[in-house]
Amino acid sequence: MTQRYFEDLPVGFRFTTAARSLTRAEVVDFARDWDPQEFHLDEAAARASHFGALITSGWQTLLVAFNLSMAAGVWDEASMGASGMDEVRWFKPVFPGDAIHVEAEVVSAERSASRPDRGRVRIRHDVVNQHGEKVASYIGNHLIKARG
Amino acid sequence: MTQRYFEDLPVGFRFTTAARSLTRAEVVDFARDWDPQEFHLDEAAARASHFGALITSGWQTLLVAFNLSMAAGVWDEASMGASGMDEVRWFKPVFPGDAIHVEAEVVSAERSASRPDRGRVRIRHDVVNQHGEKVASYIGNHLIKARG
Repeated sequence: MTQRYFEDLPVGFRFTTAARSLTRAEVVDFARDWDPQEFHLDEAAARASHFGALITSGWQTLLVAFNLSMAAGVWDEASMGASGMDEVRWFKPVFPGDAIHVEAEVVSAERSASRPDRGRVRIRHDVVNQHGEKVASYIGNHLIKARG
Repeated sequence: MTQRYFEDLPVGFRFTTAARSLTRAEVVDFARDWDPQEFHLDEAAARASHFGALITSGWQTLLVAFNLSMAAGVWDEASMGASGMDEVRWFKPVFPGDAIHVEAEVVSAERSASRPDRGRVRIRHDVVNQHGEKVASYIGNHLIKARG
């Protein structure tokens, strides 16, 4: 995708990322380190839980979405980092093998008054599975360089 | 800590977790998998960046905070999961070796109207370093069982 700067990311600008799926081993390995709840770790325990099957940690779903979004290279060199996220939501479980992608849209874009060489761009990331279901969503608050 | 249910987590209830620090290897390993930006991966590149030193991925800071909060065991058996997070913010860099802990406070608690055996408890998690500086913060939206 073409390198974009603050001016190239107006409200309503959209992009869609590639898709990625996680193996059962990737789900369990992540959970062991960062989210050791039984329905992320153990198939039998997960079957007995209200989820009925092993599911991906919601944190790992967000991380996959973040990586897909970065890999899309939309702002790339113009990125000055992120100050936070708003409205992080988990709507549906993600199972090993599910292929998820991100549908992103700019929801606000404000040039910095004190430093007009940059702007704050808020981007809603909808995480969508292979059935077209929205499984998670978050708004990232990005700081993006303006053109030279 | 004593097992608590929805009724035991009123607005203003507070708890503080243990502290944890990350080694440089833990920071770099996480970044390689989930946040491969040069100031999380490479000391020389990080020194040349505006951070001036290798820093922890903001995602990893949140994950450490989440794990410290779970390990505190405040709601434990009563947890029915989380539906999301609000107002995730990164205020200051976290360096390898920094010891961070969580200071948590209930900011809202509402019993479910349709299912009075549970309630939604929103908990602000302030992540604080060894200098008493707030490095990050988020509000977790937790679903917690009510007493029998």
